[in-house]
Amino acid sequence: MLIVMKHNATSQEVQGAVSTIHAMGYQARPMPGSQRTAIGLVGNDGRVDKARLVGLPGVLEIIPVSRPYKQVSREWREEDTVVPLANGTVIGGREVAVMAGPCSVESEGQIMEAAERVAAAGATILRGGAYKPRTSPYSFQGLGVEGLRLLARAREATGLAIVTEAVDPESLDSVEEYADIVQIGARNMQNYPLLRRAGRSPRPVLLKRGLAATIKELLLAAEYILSEGNPNIILCERGVRSFDTETRNLFDLAAIPVVQSLSHLPIIADPSHGTGIRDKVTPMARAAVAAGADGLIVEVHPDPSKALSDGAQSLHPEEFVEMMAQVRGIADHIGRPLVGPLAGARQTV
Amino acid sequence: MLIVMKHNATSQEVQGAVSTIHAMGYQARPMPGSQRTAIGLVGNDGRVDKARLVGLPGVLEIIPVSRPYKQVSREWREEDTVVPLANGTVIGGREVAVMAGPCSVESEGQIMEAAERVAAAGATILRGGAYKPRTSPYSFQGLGVEGLRLLARAREATGLAIVTEAVDPESLDSVEEYADIVQIGARNMQNYPLLRRAGRSPRPVLLKRGLAATIKELLLAAEYILSEGNPNIILCERGVRSFDTETRNLFDLAAIPVVQSLSHLPIIADPSHGTGIRDKVTPMARAAVAAGADGLIVEVHPDPSKALSDGAQSLHPEEFVEMMAQVRGIADHIGRPLVGPLAGARQTV
Amino acid sequence: MLIVMKHNATSQEVQGAVSTIHAMGYQARPMPGSQRTAIGLVGNDGRVDKARLVGLPGVLEIIPVSRPYKQVSREWREEDTVVPLANGTVIGGREVAVMAGPCSVESEGQIMEAAERVAAAGATILRGGAYKPRTSPYSFQGLGVEGLRLLARAREATGLAIVTEAVDPESLDSVEEYADIVQIGARNMQNYPLLRRAGRSPRPVLLKRGLAATIKELLLAAEYILSEGNPNIILCERGVRSFDTETRNLFDLAAIPVVQSLSHLPIIADPSHGTGIRDKVTPMARAAVAAGADGLIVEVHPDPSKALSDGAQSLHPEEFVEMMAQVRGIADHIGRPLVGPLAGARQTV
Amino acid sequence: MLIVMKHNATSQEVQGAVSTIHAMGYQARPMPGSQRTAIGLVGNDGRVDKARLVGLPGVLEIIPVSRPYKQVSREWREEDTVVPLANGTVIGGREVAVMAGPCSVESEGQIMEAAERVAAAGATILRGGAYKPRTSPYSFQGLGVEGLRLLARAREATGLAIVTEAVDPESLDSVEEYADIVQIGARNMQNYPLLRRAGRSPRPVLLKRGLAATIKELLLAAEYILSEGNPNIILCERGVRSFDTETRNLFDLAAIPVVQSLSHLPIIADPSHGTGIRDKVTPMARAAVAAGADGLIVEVHPDPSKALSDGAQSLHPEEFVEMMAQVRGIADHIGRPLVGPLAGARQTV
Repeated sequence: MLIVMKHNATSQEVQGAVSTIHAMGYQARPMPGSQRTAIGLVGNDGRVDKARLVGLPGVLEIIPVSRPYKQVSREWREEDTVVPLANGTVIGGREVAVMAGPCSVESEGQIMEAAERVAAAGATILRGGAYKPRTSPYSFQGLGVEGLRLLARAREATGLAIVTEAVDPESLDSVEEYADIVQIGARNMQNYPLLRRAGRSPRPVLLKRGLAATIKELLLAAEYILSEGNPNIILCERGVRSFDTETRNLFDLAAIPVVQSLSHLPIIADPSHGTGIRDKVTPMARAAVAAGADGLIVEVHPDPSKALSDGAQSLHPEEFVEMMAQVRGIADHIGRPLVGPLAGARQTV
Repeated sequence: MLIVMKHNATSQEVQGAVSTIHAMGYQARPMPGSQRTAIGLVGNDGRVDKARLVGLPGVLEIIPVSRPYKQVSREWREEDTVVPLANGTVIGGREVAVMAGPCSVESEGQIMEAAERVAAAGATILRGGAYKPRTSPYSFQGLGVEGLRLLARAREATGLAIVTEAVDPESLDSVEEYADIVQIGARNMQNYPLLRRAGRSPRPVLLKRGLAATIKELLLAAEYILSEGNPNIILCERGVRSFDTETRNLFDLAAIPVVQSLSHLPIIADPSHGTGIRDKVTPMARAAVAAGADGLIVEVHPDPSKALSDGAQSLHPEEFVEMMAQVRGIADHIGRPLVGPLAGARQTV
Repeated sequence: MLIVMKHNATSQEVQGAVSTIHAMGYQARPMPGSQRTAIGLVGNDGRVDKARLVGLPGVLEIIPVSRPYKQVSREWREEDTVVPLANGTVIGGREVAVMAGPCSVESEGQIMEAAERVAAAGATILRGGAYKPRTSPYSFQGLGVEGLRLLARAREATGLAIVTEAVDPESLDSVEEYADIVQIGARNMQNYPLLRRAGRSPRPVLLKRGLAATIKELLLAAEYILSEGNPNIILCERGVRSFDTETRNLFDLAAIPVVQSLSHLPIIADPSHGTGIRDKVTPMARAAVAAGADGLIVEVHPDPSKALSDGAQSLHPEEFVEMMAQVRGIADHIGRPLVGPLAGARQTV
Repeated sequence: MLIVMKHNATSQEVQGAVSTIHAMGYQARPMPGSQRTAIGLVGNDGRVDKARLVGLPGVLEIIPVSRPYKQVSREWREEDTVVPLANGTVIGGREVAVMAGPCSVESEGQIMEAAERVAAAGATILRGGAYKPRTSPYSFQGLGVEGLRLLARAREATGLAIVTEAVDPESLDSVEEYADIVQIGARNMQNYPLLRRAGRSPRPVLLKRGLAATIKELLLAAEYILSEGNPNIILCERGVRSFDTETRNLFDLAAIPVVQSLSHLPIIADPSHGTGIRDKVTPMARAAVAAGADGLIVEVHPDPSKALSDGAQSLHPEEFVEMMAQVRGIADHIGRPLVGPLAGARQTV
């Protein structure tokens, strides 16, 4: 941590800052410069609260040098985290995993058909919301536990693993009973009681980046989960808020290599929420894999025009088949082939 | 709702959109134009899900005309909502209410001194966090129920009403037992289970705008609370995320008159989080009142340099006295005097 | 400047960074820490190009400590810059100056009426665009020199000083011939040839903040003007781009006290562009003055419904009279009364 | 255009809006709804100024339906624009063009070496700035005409076409004399006199997206060029401003397919400015090509640690060779092979 003094700070003020640093239990290294003095705070472990220093007379600003996150960082753990699922899919290894399915579970017919179609196209994980956080209280809010049961039935029929969202500790109890992966959605990325609860779950956690979360905040949210003991975290880039309304969100694909430099955790990409526009999903799925994503999560609906949520960004099953073909070639080319398809899946391609 | 067709949409495609609108139970009014056809969807109540229409062939875009929120809107209720508290303070009427106190409750001595100082300066509501949502899991997370008990003791001693944050349904149970106002923080603005729970509370709710929430999303979050039956909602502008790091957030004061046009709910301003810099708090408190805010919430700490959180933006008690003097004159000038001070408060000014 | 090394940087890499700093002509102060080594670069004048250091092996990041701007900073010049105009108005002193008038000069009748109305209400400077930078090539682009002549005629008739925009060096030649203040608009804030040309003008310059410019970039743009020798610069906050479309821009009033801390230059506020909505202009004008703005620039049109540009945000003359009354009381209360009105002006209030 | 009336608008107010529409020369189609009346404005050509309508009593908002741009749109011209260069490179066709070279031309040795290295790796266009718009007036501003001469010499030696930036009409005179493509940089995207001048140039124009420009604004800026008669425009996505400082900009790759839907103009991507970090350039170059970019522009410097500008994001020549190999495979896979290499180029791969 660096304490930058004002250019007209007096030597008493510099001495005051040094004394406060000592009182906090650290060492101080003043560096007088031609314009101003800066003081290095040495001996900290990356978790110094800067507030005590900001208020001091003569202090211009405090610049953190250490990173505030710890266990999620590559400096803490050099090797990639690898998350294995019961159906054999591995996330975070050499292969690229594909999760697909409808935004919401709407009925048995809908989810069974979706599951069969995405499995046939080569996906190995089924997505589908049973608990839906919706901006308006008047929108469809999900089938709840009944939705989870339908997902479990789809797993039985196809061998797909299940990823579905929990929105509070109560729904997390149910989700971890039925699903293979517990999803924490973008709106809940900084819902700390929920993160802590997920940190005590035996299931892997898919943590989506918040609507306007920095990469640092995403990693700190993951740190909440990891600090409770759950090492199986999959991060997800799904677009952030922007000033341009042409797309639903601004899909930040550079976050993928950036996260991979800073952290050992796998990161997948969601081109459906990332763009919000059906015919932009496939090009951005290609781009995400080319950027090095460890997986994709894509909305596919048997009949998007009848979807109860997110129909505008859901692929038709045939479009998903085509997307998989395009993505597969890129994945192979960069030496990171797609996972699967599942042994039993009646293949489309 | 307006369905805009592509310029080269065929008449079959236009007819298809019309049929879908009919199938959804609404009327369709096609308007052929020189460049393209648009179709008005008539007879809706503001809650049509546009997804079924977005996917149709020939459709360029869907433009919502009705507002998605309902009970929070001025069109639903013309008169201002007025929120009365047990100590006589009224929020949302002609007078401007002031809430002040430390970011976190840290100890009995700290909160009692803070309470006495802010009451003496003329505030009538005490703020102080017992449950703290912190970006890092390694930061101080609050005293919990013990903090609530200290707040209640401060109320007894001073007559101040209490506002404090709940972070999940469990902490909300405790908060509503001890506090006069339940706060939902910015990070939880779209935590829907928590909003619904707050909607079933007998206490008024202070709902802070999310870090990157639009005004529409803020109103929809309030709609979650209102739709559960709790009419006593106070909105709060506290700055939004921006590209500039000179201030902690970008304090969106225009949100105040905009919300007051769109909604009957009162809206207060938080210049402490809005700027994040102690010596910018007073000018922005002045500006907020001049913009028409129904109240202020300000961080004040007996000794900011020792604060366990947010010390850099907390006012010293003497600075708060000065802030109140400056704000009072502006409030009087625009015909909206400050609430209070409390009858028993030993006045500073 | 601080060079932060990776936690696993070798001592050769640290030595390499030190050598490069020496080769650049500065001193190096290594500070080994428990997690990583940081190296202070000492002896610079705030203008070191960090690029040579970023690329070095073992370097994690470069943190600038000095500010990149110089002559515009308060550290360079402690006292406020004061900009005097020929008609006696002073900008940047104790008094608050008001500029008002239509977005564009449209006709002699329009500008003469606008001038008389704003002068009567107490403004001392007339705004009006003769060269209009418009987002679409098909929108009205201004009357050019003819517009400047009409402005000069309005000055003769009323005594108002004139502020109007230049969009390239050629139009600046004309503007500085006719106007009292040369405006550089938001879209041209980083048009460096234009800034340099303005820096060689004998006229004061009104520099508007760019659509997504940080405060640091605004100050660096002013540095371009100042470094050419023109000390008479007035900065202007006019709202920045945001994710919310409720208002045209996000009006960043905290920029006013922030700029006043960092720089000696005066800063005024533009609530018309800052909000883009007529009935939000007056509350935000009040807020701007309460925040400490050194002046206001407001769009007023004799008949906004017929305006060729920005009609939606222009005040009716009677609304401007009311705005002035409200603003005057706040200005008086904070000890910074409004400039004017002009001696000869037939007063409305 | 749709005029949405307030829910309590009187029938006189509705009639007033209808009359104004008629007075503007268009037809009005009122659509009474259950909540409010909306009025369709029919017969316009996409360039109606909404200002006259916004101000009317009873009007809630104005919603544009037509797009404000015209000649750049796919609706105006169905087939892709193809920009041919003298050295045989074609931009906007089936093949993907690669532009590479240093940020600035610094010396004959530097630019000649850069040219040879990028040509050998397969690029067919050389980038290099002679006029540099820099945020600080104290940073290196380019060699001017001397830089252009060195670029021309590099073209002679290698056969590479030249792209370089003009910053004002004067420098554009020189740039169009020496270069094959005139670049308009991000900071000048809304410098309309410069855009108009570029529109009268015989050279193709590379137009970079502004720092916070929406896609619509980018297309309107291109419309300025096209409306002056120059059809050879190449758009460039180079990252936009964001709240996260991990990368220099937020690289908006979804803009590529979005622009390709809306416009017939080719669009290339700049992963160097898009990320600002050397080791993120190659993954994002791969992603850009996978997303369907019509070309790449990449910073390559013979010795980035000595670069006078942008060293931190410049590739070493060997890194560029590797980037080209990775990108080539993806380009081939999606059926859009790379242009080149030039006939005479001594190939590296």
